[in-house]
This record gives sequence, structure tokens and C-alpha cells, in this order.
Amino acid sequence: MTAGGYEDIGHARVDVDRLRRQGMAEAVYGEGKTAEQIVEILRVLKAHGQLPALATRLDAAKAAAVGAALGAEFEYFPAARLGRLGKARTDDGAGTVVVAAAGTSDLPVAEEAAITAETLGNRVVRLADVGVAGIHRLLAERAALEEASVLVVVAGMEGALASVAGGLAACPVVAVPTGVGYGAAFEGLAALLGMLNSCAAGVAVVNIDNGFGAGVLAHRINHVGRNK
Amino acid sequence: MTAGGYEDIGHARVDVDRLRRQGMAEAVYGEGKTAEQIVEILRVLKAHGQLPALATRLDAAKAAAVGAALGAEFEYFPAARLGRLGKARTDDGAGTVVVAAAGTSDLPVAEEAAITAETLGNRVVRLADVGVAGIHRLLAERAALEEASVLVVVAGMEGALASVAGGLAACPVVAVPTGVGYGAAFEGLAALLGMLNSCAAGVAVVNIDNGFGAGVLAHRINHVGRNK
Amino acid sequence: MTAGGYEDIGHARVDVDRLRRQGMAEAVYGEGKTAEQIVEILRVLKAHGQLPALATRLDAAKAAAVGAALGAEFEYFPAARLGRLGKARTDDGAGTVVVAAAGTSDLPVAEEAAITAETLGNRVVRLADVGVAGIHRLLAERAALEEASVLVVVAGMEGALASVAGGLAACPVVAVPTGVGYGAAFEGLAALLGMLNSCAAGVAVVNIDNGFGAGVLAHRINHVGRNK
Amino acid sequence: MTAGGYEDIGHARVDVDRLRRQGMAEAVYGEGKTAEQIVEILRVLKAHGQLPALATRLDAAKAAAVGAALGAEFEYFPAARLGRLGKARTDDGAGTVVVAAAGTSDLPVAEEAAITAETLGNRVVRLADVGVAGIHRLLAERAALEEASVLVVVAGMEGALASVAGGLAACPVVAVPTGVGYGAAFEGLAALLGMLNSCAAGVAVVNIDNGFGAGVLAHRINHVGRNK
Amino acid sequence: MTAGGYEDIGHARVDVDRLRRQGMAEAVYGEGKTAEQIVEILRVLKAHGQLPALATRLDAAKAAAVGAALGAEFEYFPAARLGRLGKARTDDGAGTVVVAAAGTSDLPVAEEAAITAETLGNRVVRLADVGVAGIHRLLAERAALEEASVLVVVAGMEGALASVAGGLAACPVVAVPTGVGYGAAFEGLAALLGMLNSCAAGVAVVNIDNGFGAGVLAHRINHVGRNK
Amino acid sequence: MTAGGYEDIGHARVDVDRLRRQGMAEAVYGEGKTAEQIVEILRVLKAHGQLPALATRLDAAKAAAVGAALGAEFEYFPAARLGRLGKARTDDGAGTVVVAAAGTSDLPVAEEAAITAETLGNRVVRLADVGVAGIHRLLAERAALEEASVLVVVAGMEGALASVAGGLAACPVVAVPTGVGYGAAFEGLAALLGMLNSCAAGVAVVNIDNGFGAGVLAHRINHVGRNK
Amino acid sequence: MTAGGYEDIGHARVDVDRLRRQGMAEAVYGEGKTAEQIVEILRVLKAHGQLPALATRLDAAKAAAVGAALGAEFEYFPAARLGRLGKARTDDGAGTVVVAAAGTSDLPVAEEAAITAETLGNRVVRLADVGVAGIHRLLAERAALEEASVLVVVAGMEGALASVAGGLAACPVVAVPTGVGYGAAFEGLAALLGMLNSCAAGVAVVNIDNGFGAGVLAHRINHVGRNK
Amino acid sequence: MTAGGYEDIGHARVDVDRLRRQGMAEAVYGEGKTAEQIVEILRVLKAHGQLPALATRLDAAKAAAVGAALGAEFEYFPAARLGRLGKARTDDGAGTVVVAAAGTSDLPVAEEAAITAETLGNRVVRLADVGVAGIHRLLAERAALEEASVLVVVAGMEGALASVAGGLAACPVVAVPTGVGYGAAFEGLAALLGMLNSCAAGVAVVNIDNGFGAGVLAHRINHVGRNK
Repeated sequence: MTAGGYEDIGHARVDVDRLRRQGMAEAVYGEGKTAEQIVEILRVLKAHGQLPALATRLDAAKAAAVGAALGAEFEYFPAARLGRLGKARTDDGAGTVVVAAAGTSDLPVAEEAAITAETLGNRVVRLADVGVAGIHRLLAERAALEEASVLVVVAGMEGALASVAGGLAACPVVAVPTGVGYGAAFEGLAALLGMLNSCAAGVAVVNIDNGFGAGVLAHRINHVGRNK
Repeated sequence: MTAGGYEDIGHARVDVDRLRRQGMAEAVYGEGKTAEQIVEILRVLKAHGQLPALATRLDAAKAAAVGAALGAEFEYFPAARLGRLGKARTDDGAGTVVVAAAGTSDLPVAEEAAITAETLGNRVVRLADVGVAGIHRLLAERAALEEASVLVVVAGMEGALASVAGGLAACPVVAVPTGVGYGAAFEGLAALLGMLNSCAAGVAVVNIDNGFGAGVLAHRINHVGRNK
Repeated sequence: MTAGGYEDIGHARVDVDRLRRQGMAEAVYGEGKTAEQIVEILRVLKAHGQLPALATRLDAAKAAAVGAALGAEFEYFPAARLGRLGKARTDDGAGTVVVAAAGTSDLPVAEEAAITAETLGNRVVRLADVGVAGIHRLLAERAALEEASVLVVVAGMEGALASVAGGLAACPVVAVPTGVGYGAAFEGLAALLGMLNSCAAGVAVVNIDNGFGAGVLAHRINHVGRNK
Repeated sequence: MTAGGYEDIGHARVDVDRLRRQGMAEAVYGEGKTAEQIVEILRVLKAHGQLPALATRLDAAKAAAVGAALGAEFEYFPAARLGRLGKARTDDGAGTVVVAAAGTSDLPVAEEAAITAETLGNRVVRLADVGVAGIHRLLAERAALEEASVLVVVAGMEGALASVAGGLAACPVVAVPTGVGYGAAFEGLAALLGMLNSCAAGVAVVNIDNGFGAGVLAHRINHVGRNK
Repeated sequence: MTAGGYEDIGHARVDVDRLRRQGMAEAVYGEGKTAEQIVEILRVLKAHGQLPALATRLDAAKAAAVGAALGAEFEYFPAARLGRLGKARTDDGAGTVVVAAAGTSDLPVAEEAAITAETLGNRVVRLADVGVAGIHRLLAERAALEEASVLVVVAGMEGALASVAGGLAACPVVAVPTGVGYGAAFEGLAALLGMLNSCAAGVAVVNIDNGFGAGVLAHRINHVGRNK
Repeated sequence: MTAGGYEDIGHARVDVDRLRRQGMAEAVYGEGKTAEQIVEILRVLKAHGQLPALATRLDAAKAAAVGAALGAEFEYFPAARLGRLGKARTDDGAGTVVVAAAGTSDLPVAEEAAITAETLGNRVVRLADVGVAGIHRLLAERAALEEASVLVVVAGMEGALASVAGGLAACPVVAVPTGVGYGAAFEGLAALLGMLNSCAAGVAVVNIDNGFGAGVLAHRINHVGRNK
Repeated sequence: MTAGGYEDIGHARVDVDRLRRQGMAEAVYGEGKTAEQIVEILRVLKAHGQLPALATRLDAAKAAAVGAALGAEFEYFPAARLGRLGKARTDDGAGTVVVAAAGTSDLPVAEEAAITAETLGNRVVRLADVGVAGIHRLLAERAALEEASVLVVVAGMEGALASVAGGLAACPVVAVPTGVGYGAAFEGLAALLGMLNSCAAGVAVVNIDNGFGAGVLAHRINHVGRNK
Repeated sequence: MTAGGYEDIGHARVDVDRLRRQGMAEAVYGEGKTAEQIVEILRVLKAHGQLPALATRLDAAKAAAVGAALGAEFEYFPAARLGRLGKARTDDGAGTVVVAAAGTSDLPVAEEAAITAETLGNRVVRLADVGVAGIHRLLAERAALEEASVLVVVAGMEGALASVAGGLAACPVVAVPTGVGYGAAFEGLAALLGMLNSCAAGVAVVNIDNGFGAGVLAHRINHVGRNK
């Protein structure tokens, strides 16, 4: 049954109205769901033309099981722990989404943001290891920062990259704290608080390790006033 | 001296390059500064054509002193605790910035966001008291949510409005937790955590009570691909 | 010995007065107890007519051992991690207990609440995946919410469902935060704080993941003024 | 205008549908509102027959101003910091609401719960100073606990009264932590955590110092299966 | 070398003056030490007549290795995770140490306290499962509480037993919060805060799960004015 | 009425059984009570022979009002913010209670502990300003520490004095964290955690700034095996 | 009496050995002490040649009273809330102490550090308003950073200046978080955590707002291998 | 490519300017990196003469793989979990770095600090097990403390050693909290807060378990005014 814009399959009410309403399909939160449940939900989404569709926080084992059931149309991005059913859209955004990661250990979250944005139809430029301990590495990419239409900053530890990059860029900045660090990093809390208190204006923050949310937000920002 | 894009006046190094670099003048953080210091900084900004310029978190007494020194060009918005030197820009954004406040007590923060965005050249629509305890009040404004190019959600207590509105809107959502509430609201912490964990995608969060930051971000989003 | 309403079996003083005093048998908290201890306690309860009796937080291995010792009278509900000795009572409550889960990952806790309430003699209606990111899914169940005599809301992440449902229902609402989420969800803390600060009146909260407690409370509410 | 069940008066959208939908009028949260705003909202409620209506967290000065504007129909309860427009309803609940306060300093919150419940049509019995440091004081009231249809427990410091009373009563228990205490009481956090972790089943918790919410919940529980 | 009251064995400076100074040998904190290190330290203690000596937080594997090296003089108490070199002293305290555990899951910590006290020369009475959810179980042991010279209360969850027992006993009360519980128990924090805020006077608290510390303290209290 | 060991005076149930049960009268927690309420409670205590009785956390204004009502039998100790009705008992403890304060700013809490213990019949020795930043000041008092039957340590900031003194003394140590300090002292939290984690055995902790509780505990320890 | 290196004046044991032992006089922590107590302590210090001596956290009123008692030898620095008895020493350090403040509101704490270091015999260079939101302001001072022998970084909000400056400087960096900010700054906690997790090596942190401690540390670093 | 002082190898931008700029090579943070990535980075560092170079938080398996690839020039220090490419520099510091560990379990962190400092050209003296529970063990090392040019204090639990040693030493003190402890130690938080609030002046703190950072800082302090 699909009364009222969703299809009820027992363990889930799949939102088959979301593409129309919000310009993108419902994403499947992979944690705490079985591979079977994920397959069922993705099939419902496909049946209603809700593609491309993403499944997040998917480990390799689940991804293999999902891929076996859904075939070649399903693609898995192990670094980002993302699965995708259907092809990425063509880029039709206002400009470039720049995804900057402070350190090598932040790359998985950055990649989740990047692939999410690409899937939804955005051109993405990736900058790796531009943390502020050696600021010349960031300053060397100043042109990229100034040309971005959206800047996604991914950083753990103290998350200072968000403030520095936020002071250089003129575009909206989406900051993603990560759980990288130890001790008083408190699994991302230090970076989260740092980014929320950024002395640079124009910075907004998503949940710790939420590369997916940052990618969605970057997409929406890059499509303001365009196709919804 | 203004070597290197700033003017050093002893207690402050006024960033007179920011309009060029980031499309807006440096804002003066009013807390912990004397009226005299604020006046000095605003004068430097004006001398370098960095207008309109905002001073945030300005109480009425300081605002009166600043106004007395700067004259009619300085305007004070008491509800928002904002002072402004110079006129608001003409609206040249992609669409409408909608600022929605969950309750009457959230209005000061919402107003800070709204006036900031208007100052920077955006058309703003205000929605008051659309909290989710009576969801029909929000649903009645569904058209406004769907037409927005940016949605700023201002809410205290549990901050649930961000999730519900975030599930209805297709545009980027900037969520502002407020200190409204008591007990386990922990001065905005509950709303902050709620908004960071929003089950709706496309929501980003700024600091508790940071209406100014939300207004700047809304402006930048509404001008993506436009005048930087 | 059973002096004073309990039987002392060394590692436990089994409360054999609770059915008389509070209308239901003592439940066995399964964590940190061996299968042997659980079996012993359940046997004492049975010997004193304290049935049906529940054992909570029972993993599959312990449940198998307990079941092997106690035979067919013992039933295990794996999704809810509940074991039960004795049959569920016949429904004799004032109305219907509605158990609503925000997401698929919240279902185990919801099921613990539902089976607890059914065991104690209540009719239970389950609503799955009615989280607020797609509010039409909840609004489609408005009739169920309005007809409930008690509403149990189970949600992780930001827990906003409690506020929205609490604004629609006229009956008492029991909110159960879950550990679903990551990062700033802080293992259920965000949902817990959100629910405690609900802008809807008439909402009370139990411990994170405490489906059992919610089921007991729903039962008591549904039997106010009836058989104790 | 009152389209869609509310009346928009600029700073507030007064919910004039709540009495029909939830069996009680919207309450006015007095903190952060001016006396004028409160008067306006109460007048709208009265005009739509939404009485009795409560205003919470009202200090004496605001209450005097509100009373001067609204006349004799408005009554103020200083201990509870509650204002009420319109008379309390006649008791039509299933039984008795017992409000038990652990210490003398908890009485204001207990009184807020008691008057809220009385206003909505419930018989209330008050027990003062029955904290567990001298448990004979509580045991002396055992009959009252056993006859209650709802028990509201109000306690600060460690909040242990909720667990002890919850082990004696057969009815639903609504626990209200208060900010009474110092040091590691952390303004009610210790009592809140204690009550959430109560080893007695059937206990639910509301926000710190939220006597109003406890009163509403007690009312709803006491009217399950009755007039909605 | 044993200059200055200790013997330096490289990884440790064994305090061989403690028996004289504080009436008991240094205890070996077993966590983060190898079995070899523990054996070495215990041998030094023995060589200096510092017996009986305890090693705490010793898992079964380490205990087996230590026992193999030290022979029959070493005894292991698996429930308490304690190892002991040398015999327990004869009881020479002022009275009885009563160790009361709220629930079955609290027994390991209670046992650590009990064996520590017995080792140091105290008569210990154990009370299991006297949590306040069924207060008659505690009241049945009232005589034991009144006759105690020290009362050690071991409880997790909300830790309310400390307050209730503290209101009945006339002797000093040592409260030990445990990590028993889940969710908002926050691994013992709720019990810890509850006990620190006990409304009963005369209650002191040790670290979460610190049965050893409670046993030492009970011993010292029970020997005030006696052999040091 | 005084049925069941207490007298009910409306706002309080005065425990008139406590002297018999616990060897000391109920203390009046002065915060959140009016002077009138305190006077009433103290009069009831006196009428039942429950003297000496203490009122804690009493500011000077309330103390003056209470003193005016009760006359010369009431004494006020401003440094300790304690009021006392009735004379201190004669010392009949096992030995000496030593109260050591780390810094000058900790003296009020230390004095609360000292006067409480003296009131209950103990000889008290006060050591001021023996914090560990200049450890020779503490070592100079080594004899006092070694001769104590109970040691009360009062310290703010990091609270290290408890560990150092606890390593020198053979008697039970009662540690009182204070709110002295700033920044990351978090109003006593740092000292509290430090004392709970003391590497010295035999240390127990009471609530932040709880000099009264420490005094009671010291008294009970000093009277173990004596008059209850 | 001055036995053992201190003089006992009742409320304090003045450490008159500290200049010899640690190269500087004991500082007087002004909070929670009366002007009389401060005067007494400073007089003892002077009598023992322990000059210059500092009194910290001194408000203007106390400073006036202290100054009236001690005469011209006492100097007050209102911005830093420091009082000093005796002249600053001549600079004899290894190089320059650079004190950099992120914003105007951080200047009082920076000044406390600067004057402390100057008092102890160090040349100090002050850099104001070099926060990272406009990084060109910091880069313009690169020469100063590279020539420093110690760098003290004072910053509130997210404290990112410590990481950026720490990545440019080769000398030891002492980071001082301040309480500047609001909301999720949590009175300095965000800056504190940020600085502790600095991705730049060679950064150490002192307590929030502890300019004095930073000044002492800078002094000791600048005098390593010199006069103690 | 090595434009601008770094070499971009895709997953990392290796800072090959750091030796010149800050006197030491970039260290490789081993957590969250593969052995292959670590090898690549170390090879780039070597190619640019950036030796000796350290890799931190390296487990034995990764170290073996790195060692197999890099040969004999790579050395692994298992206790410290440090890998080093290139020889330690010759000692050319101002004096001695003393690394003092409170307990045996703190030794791994102490060793990380010691080897880091030795690698960078410092003479290091190690003091093990000098915790304050037996203060004579520390006092016996008083000469070492007084002769140090830098003192690194490594301690878990309550971290009191920092305050006591800080009161004895005249040199700068770098305090390293460790995660040693349990319960309310909160994985190093108690020690961290304790050290930040040290009543001894001249103490600075690094992140929990950050032996590496302490070693770097000790090195820089020991080289102030010398070779950068």
C-alpha cells in the first residue's frame, strides 16, 4: 500500500514522496538494519522511481549481501561506507563543492560527503591534509577556497580548520567534526564545540562524522534557486 | 597604519579587507567591549567603505552611547540587540529567507537573524510561534516553507521544529538553538543536541542563540553563484 | 524461608509479595546474572504463583539455557530480548496502548514495551517508522493516536517524535529515548534531553532503551481505576 | 484570523483548537513574555472558550499586572507561581492524585503540580516532607500511597523518594526532580538521573522543576477512558 | 635498595613502610600490570613482612599465573577479583562491618569490600538483594543495620539504598556506587551523584566499583582508637 | 500530632525520633526555608528534647531573625553559616578529629565541619592553609595527622591534599571538595573527581562544600563502639 | 613563628621559603580573601624579603584598601586585576615572551600574563586581536612569532589561534583559554578542549582565564638554565 | 611536487619545511593510517632530510610492516608505541629533562615522552612510581627535581603528583594526565581537571595520554635560546 506518499512494508514506511517534496530520495540509514531490510527498502524506492538512492554506514559484509541481491545497478564505496542504487546525476549546480579534510584520518568522512554531493549532481573538488599545523598547505589552496560555491570542512581533534578556512572563503561553510583524536577529544566533542564557536561567521555544523548530511546540505546550497 | 589589509588601533586590528574578501564588513562583537571601543572600530570601518557594518550583542545603554557618537547613520534594533552603521543593501538574493521561530520567547534570536540577513541584501519572511506542540500552526505555513530558498529555524527547549520543518522544506535549513527553557534544557544544550541529531537531512546548526551567524549563513546561501 | 514477603535464596531475595502489592510479579533483570540464577528466581516466583513473570535483557544464549531448564512454559521473544514464564493475561485495560517507533532501528525497544504491556493484559497497536522527517507518515496514523488510551513513543537521534505526537494525542504519553544514532547523539542522551524538554505537555520519560519500564507504565495507566 | 485552529496575534499563534483536541487549553509559558503579551493571549483563549487557562512561571510583579488587566476572573497562586483564568473544573477523575514532596524546599514545585491537576478536574491529596532520611514518615502514609490512582513524587537532592514510593504504590508514578540541593546536585541533575534509573518499575520522569507537566500528566492518567 | 622506606625494583617503588605507617600493607593495583610485575611486588612485600597483602582487579588468568609462582600462600577470590598473599588477620575490631548489596549484580563489588575487610581483621555480615524497590526486604534486616559498627552500602542504578539505609543506621555509612544499570546510569554516574547528595547525614562515598577502598575504610573506622 | 515518631506541622514532618535512632537530632537545612519555618521546626525539636540541634546554610539575616525568636539558647556561627539551639555536648569520642583546610578560602567549609563535630561531642584540632603547593607546611603537622582518630580534609581546586594526607594518616579520611577555584574547577567538580580517585586508600568523599556532612561522619567514626 | 619555612598567621601559613625554592615569592590568590588578610600576607612576605609579590584576581575596591594600607610600594593593574608589592625585576631572560590575544575581549587575561612575566624579569611583546578569522593579521606578525623564546596564546571561543600559531612558532607555546564567547563556548570549555587537542605539537594549556599561571610558566621557560 | 614547502602524495601533504621552520620533522600520527601510508610518508620525509622522524600510536603489527619496508634505519619502541626513522640527535639541551611517572601503569605514556625528548636531543632521567600515596618515595628524589631544567609529570587517577612536584621544582612543569584508573576517573578526565587546577604555579597540561606532545614541549623548553 502506498497511501499518503509512503509504502508500508512492516518494518519501514518508505517515503516515496521525498523526491518530489525535497528533490532527492530517502536515504537508508544502514546501521541497525539487516541486509534484507536494506534490500527491501531500496527495491521499493526503485519501484517508485526514487533513484539514485543512498544507503549510509554500510559495512563491507552488508554491502556485499545487498549487492548480490540488487545486481550491477548497486555500487559500493568502501572508503565512504556508502552504497548507491542508480547512477549519479549530472552536475547542474551553481558552482563547485570543495571538500577539505584536515588530516589523512578524516578522509573517510570527507569521502562520504563528496560522493553524496556527486550523486546528487554536483562537481566536487577534494583537498586532503590541509590542517592548520602547517598553514602553508592550506594557503596554497587559497584559489580553490575562493572559487568554491560551498566549502565542506572535515576535521577532528580541535577542528580549527573550520575557522581558518571560514575566514578565507566567501561562500557558505559546512563544518563536519570527526571522531579523530583521543583523550580530551572525547570522540569528536572537542571538534564539535570548536566549530560551533568558530570566530568566523558563515559556518554551520553537522553531527560528528556526518559526511552524508554535509553532502546533502552542500548539494542544496549549490542548487539554491535552481532545480529543486 | 593599514598594512596588510587591517588597521591597528591598539585594542583591535580592524579587518578592512573583509568586504572584498568575503562580501561583507567585519562585524563588531559587542560583548566585553566599551562603547568607545565600538565607536572607534565602526569609524575605521566607515573610513574604509566597509558599510553596512553590524555590532552584535549590544545592550541599550551601550547602543545609546554609540548612537550619540555616530549620529543618524547608526541605527539600533533593540529586540535583536543589533546596531548598524549604514543602510541595509537592496535585496539581490536568489529567493526568500524564511525565519521561523518556535515560540514567542525565541523571537529576539530570530530577529537578530532576520535583520542580519536584511542588512546584507535579502528578502526575509518571518514566521512566529510555529512550534510543534500544535503542528497545524506549522502546516498552515507549508507554502512559505516550500518556497523558501533558505530556512532559518529558531527554537529552544527540545528544538524539534528543525526536524519537522527540515522534513518539509527542500531548501537548506539553518537551525539556531536558543537558551529558552529550564532544567534539563541546560541553557540550550538540549536544543543544540536535538538539532545536531536531526533525522531530517540538510540541516546545519550554529551556536546557541547565534542569530547573527544564522543570518550571515542564510545570506551566503541565498547568494551562491551571485555577487560574492 | 519466606518471612516478610520475600524468599531468600542467597544471591537474591525474591519479592513474592509484589503481585499482591503492585499487581504484577517482580521482573528479573537479566544482565549480570547467570542463567542458573535466573532459573532459580523464576522457579521461586512460580512456586508462589507470581506469574506471568518476565526476565529482561536476556541474550539468546542465556534464554536457551533458561528455556531448557524451565520447559514449554517459558517463552523467549528475541527481538525484545524478553523471556516470559507463564501466559500473557487477558486484556482488561481501559483502551488501547499504542506503541509508536520513529525508525526501524528503534523496533527492538518498542517490541520490549509492547510485549511487556501485552503480558500484563493490554491490547497493543504497533506503529513502525513514523519519524518526523516525513511527517505525512505520522499524520496518516492520526486516528490511532487520537483513540489511544496510552501512547508509548520510542525514538532515538533527536527524539522529536515525542513532541509532535504529544501535541496530537490527548492521552498520557510515555517517551522512551533509544541509543539509536551516533556522534552527538551520545548514546541516547540527545533523545533523552529532547524528550524531557518536550514543548508538548503530558509527556513523561523513562530511561534510555527502557522498553520494559514503558510497558509497565503503560499498563498501569491503562488500568487506573480498574483491577490493580 | 483564526484559520486552521489558531489565532495569529503577531507575537503568538494562539492554539484555539487545543481544548477540543487535547481536552485542555493551551498553557502560557510565562518566562520571557511581557505581562501585555500574556494578557493578550489569555484574552484570545477566553474569547474562544478555552478556559480554564493557566500561565506558568509567573512572578508576582507580572501576575499583578495581568490581574489588573483581567480582573477577578484571574487568580494567582504565588507559591506555585501559577496564574489561572477561569475556575477549576469539578473533579471527575478515576480516583485521587497524591502529590508527595520529599522536603519543605520542594513544596513550590509540588504546589504547581497540585494546582494544575485541581484546575483540570482532579481531587488532590498533598503529602509534605516525606523524604527517605526518616522513612517512618513515608511508611505512615502507606494507605494514601496504596489508594492513589496516580502518584506524583517531587524531590531534589538524590531523589530517592521516587524509588521507595514507586516500590510501594501500584499506580503510575510521575517523578519530578527539583533543583533543591547544592554542589554535586548540579541543579537537579542528580535527582533527574536518580529518578530515570529508578529500580522500581512504573516510574516516569518529567523535566527538572516541571510541576506543571506532572500535573497535566497526572490529570490525563486519572482520566484515561473517561472524558477526553 | 630500600632507602627511605621503599624498595626500588625498576617498574615500582614498593612501599615497605606502609604497615608501620598505616597499619596495612600496600595493595597492588592489578590493572595494567603483568603477572610477573605483580609477583615481584608481592615477593618484596613478603620479604619485608608486609602481609597479608592484596592484589586488586585481578582477572582469572593473571591470578593463575601469580598463584603458580607464589604457591599455596596465595589465595584467589574470583567473585571479588582479589588475590591475597598471607592469611587474613584475626578479628579485632570494635564491632561488625555490615556489607549490604542492593541487587544480585552488585555482589562482586560487595564481595571485594567484604574480603578486604575480613583480610584486615574484621567480622563481616553480608546482606544481599536489599534494594529499595521492595523495601520490606531491607526493613527485615533492621536489627543488623542497627547493630553494625560500620555499614557499607553497594548499589548501582539510582543508588537509593544509601539514603534509606543511612536514615536507619546510627553508624558511619560508606556508600559504593556500582556500574550496574544502563542508559542514563552512565556507568555508575547516576548512583555516584545520588549517593553524594544523600539526604541522610553520615554517608560518605568512594569511587564507582571501588569495593576495595570501601573495605579499607570500613576497617579503619572499625579500628578507631584500637590497634592502628 | 506526633504519631509514628514525627510531628507534622504542615510544611514539615519533624523527625522527633532521630536522637534515639541515630544519636543526634535532625538538622534543619536552612536554604529555601523562611526564618519562621526554621523557628517552628527548632521549637518542635526542643519540645521533644532533641538538642543540640543545628540549622545549616543560614545567612546572617535569617540567623538574626531566628535568634530574635529563640533567645540566648540559640547561637550563630557566621563563618560556618551554622545556627545551633542548645549547648555542644561534652567530648566523649575515641580521640581527636583533625580538620585540615588546604587554603584560606576553604576555611568556611572547614569551620562548618569543625563546629558540627564539636557540637556532637568531639575534640577538634584545626589546621589551616596546609595545601600541597608548599608541602613542608603539611609535613610540619605530621604528628597531628598521625595522632588523629579521624581526619577531615577540606580542599578546592584540584583537591590533592586528600591524597597526600591520606597517604600519611592511618585513620579514616573524610574528604570535602569545595567550590574554591575558577575555570576548569567547575565549581568543585575537579576537586570532587580528584578526591574520588585518590590513589591513597581509606579516603571517602562527601558532597561539594558539605562541611556539615563531614562533621557528622567524623563524629560517628569517632564514636564507633561507644555511645551511639 | 616561622618554623619550617613558613609563617603561621592563623588564617594562612605564608610560604617564606618559596623565593629560595622556586625563584619567586608565593602569590596571593585574592578571591575569597578580605583586604585585611591580603595586607597581612603581603606584609609577611615583605618582612622576609619575598618581593616582588603579586596578588591576583583583585577587584578595584579591594585593591584600593590594600593600597591604602601598604602605600606607594603597592601598585595596581586594573586591566589585569593584579596587585604588586615591590618593583618588577630587570629582564634577564633568554629572549622575548610574546603574548598574543585573539580578540579585544581576551585582553584582560593577556594583560595578566604579560604583567606577571614582566614582574618576574622578562621582556614582553604584546600582540592584540590576531584571531584566525582574518589570518592576514596573524601572518603579518610572523617575524614576532619566529623570534619569540616563549609564545603565550590567549583565546576564547574555539581557541583556534593556539593551533595556527603553534604551527608557525618554533618555541614552546603556552595556551590560555578564556571565557569569552557564549552558548556552546560553555564558559571556556570549548577553547580549553580545542587547545588540549591542538594538532600542532609543543602546545601546553593552563586553566581557563589563568593569565597568571601562563605568565609564571613563560617566565620559567624563558629562564631555563639561567637564574632559577 | 613540493611546491610551497610540502609534498602532495594524495592522502597526505607531507610538510617538508617543518625541520627548518620548527626545528623538528613532522611526526606521523599512526592511528587511522595504514602501514603503507606511514611508509610512504616516512620515505618522503627521509628524501627531504627530515630526520629523525617519529610515528606515534603505532601498534606492533603496523610497526613490523613498517620496519619490513624501511629496514634497519627504522626502530620500534614497543612500550611507547613509537617508531623512529633515523638516529636520535646528540644531547644539546640546557639541562636534564626529568620524566616522573606516578604509577607502574603510567609507564607507557612516560616512555613515549622520554623517547621523544631523547630523539630530539635531550638528556632524560626517568623516575618511576613516585605517586603521592607514599610521599617519601617522591621526597627521596628531591635532588633530581631541583636539578631538572624541565619536569614532565605523568599521572592518572587524581593526578596529584603534578601539584606536589610542581610545588617542589623551580623549573617548568609539563603535566600529562593518563587514562589510568576506573569509575569516576572517566578515562583521564579526573587527572586532566586536577592538573589544570593545580594549586602550584608553573604547571601546564597536555592532552590525556599525550606523551609525545609532552616530549616535544620538554625539548623546546630545554632548548630555549639555543638551536631552534
